[in-house]
Amino acid sequence: MTLELVSENQSFGGVQTVYKHSSNTCGCEMTFAAYLPRQAQDRKVPVLWYLSGLTCTHENAMTKGGFQEHAAKHGLAVIFPDTSPRGESVSDDEAYDLGKGAGFYVNATRDPWRPHFRMYDYIVSELRHVVLDNLPVQDRHGITGHSMGGHGAITIALRNAEMFDSLSAFAPIAHPTQSDWGRKQLSAYLGNDESAWAAHDSTLLLEEYGWKGDILVDQGASDQFLDLLKPEALADMMARRRQSGQVRMQKGYDHSYFFVNTFARDHVDWHAAQLN
Amino acid sequence: MTLELVSENQSFGGVQTVYKHSSNTCGCEMTFAAYLPRQAQDRKVPVLWYLSGLTCTHENAMTKGGFQEHAAKHGLAVIFPDTSPRGESVSDDEAYDLGKGAGFYVNATRDPWRPHFRMYDYIVSELRHVVLDNLPVQDRHGITGHSMGGHGAITIALRNAEMFDSLSAFAPIAHPTQSDWGRKQLSAYLGNDESAWAAHDSTLLLEEYGWKGDILVDQGASDQFLDLLKPEALADMMARRRQSGQVRMQKGYDHSYFFVNTFARDHVDWHAAQLN
Repeated sequence: MTLELVSENQSFGGVQTVYKHSSNTCGCEMTFAAYLPRQAQDRKVPVLWYLSGLTCTHENAMTKGGFQEHAAKHGLAVIFPDTSPRGESVSDDEAYDLGKGAGFYVNATRDPWRPHFRMYDYIVSELRHVVLDNLPVQDRHGITGHSMGGHGAITIALRNAEMFDSLSAFAPIAHPTQSDWGRKQLSAYLGNDESAWAAHDSTLLLEEYGWKGDILVDQGASDQFLDLLKPEALADMMARRRQSGQVRMQKGYDHSYFFVNTFARDHVDWHAAQLN
Repeated sequence: MTLELVSENQSFGGVQTVYKHSSNTCGCEMTFAAYLPRQAQDRKVPVLWYLSGLTCTHENAMTKGGFQEHAAKHGLAVIFPDTSPRGESVSDDEAYDLGKGAGFYVNATRDPWRPHFRMYDYIVSELRHVVLDNLPVQDRHGITGHSMGGHGAITIALRNAEMFDSLSAFAPIAHPTQSDWGRKQLSAYLGNDESAWAAHDSTLLLEEYGWKGDILVDQGASDQFLDLLKPEALADMMARRRQSGQVRMQKGYDHSYFFVNTFARDHVDWHAAQLN
């Protein structure tokens, strides 16, 4: 596996990189961004995974999320994966919320998505090994994400608790089996048998597995997508399950990166406290 | 003059706004962004002007510059103007560095640019009054900018020292009369008589006027445009003129927003110390 350096920019004493590689899992070339703090020049550092939301690539959070400053302070690497397979051979849909930019962190079992849309395995297995094998990082991971990426972070962590030591999310799609951000995509990618969907629903997974540590969720109280995100389902389940952690309803904030970067510091501090 | 609110996003306890207005100076509709910190809900706050570089609009620094966090801490408003007139009636050029996105902060005296390209007057007079008349700000200003915007910040401040109380720049085009980033644009906008260009050259203006306070300039030592920016001309002039301040050559940094947002904190702190 050859990792091709696409760009490299010094940032807060470390380096913001972008890499391309050929993905066996997705059957296409994939791009991801990696922030490597100055500390990574001397030793291996823990990794924070940031999964992005609908329509995003690796680039949005890398340029607008404001994570580098805080990762630099704590000596964390931050990995920003893409949100779907890419390229001419990859199926797409006219809608912004299906196909490219909308992988939903599942392995599709239905055509036309089945051949390439395997973002669950891509994150959990292939990209994780690419990062571990090629970058100066420890096999010690936290995971977070925004919107569809918050859904990805929580579902992937709950199903792979041995791989992750810290978990948070920004405005996650919290109960996709009961939302139009979820039912549409899960039926397209996984088929109409809803029993297959539960493995990709944060609220249902939390009920089944719980989480070994604390969970931090930030949610804008003026988010324009609250009806689709359904934070109340996750908050209810956390309380019923006595899951340690917090859902912080942040007055006045919407769904944008202005919300994400306002609270980026809290999340990175939170992960660093558990990873370092 | 009617100010139309285009967008509003809560950010670090304040609000990141974007406004449109009809500009008499530029003869077109103009867009600018304004960050208003929480403190502006209770009192008028000082203003930091951030002038952007070639190809930028009001949006680039607003989303990638990372200024909001620091402005929130100090209670400063930050204004992000556009870099040129816009619209179908406005002349343009195929090159990225002339016409739209490349106003160079001058008042054009030559056709086809003369009718709309009046960014000097737009910043110094019209937009300044729009901001003072419509936003909760004091008539107390600092100014900074990046690249072409660094050129704009220094030239505008030196020629209007009574209007500005603090001055800094990120990788400014420091000596445009002797650079291909400058000679091309100044000849197009102002004509071939080079005597008219000196009023838009930071190094020459510094020689003539000096600056009443300290000047902070950050420059990436790995900037890909060092030959065009000519920081050595400005550094030489600051030393010869015994101008208080500093030109910091930052090892490893390039010309990107990863450079700008790494040092955004230092610049906002610097302006706040003089404005508050």
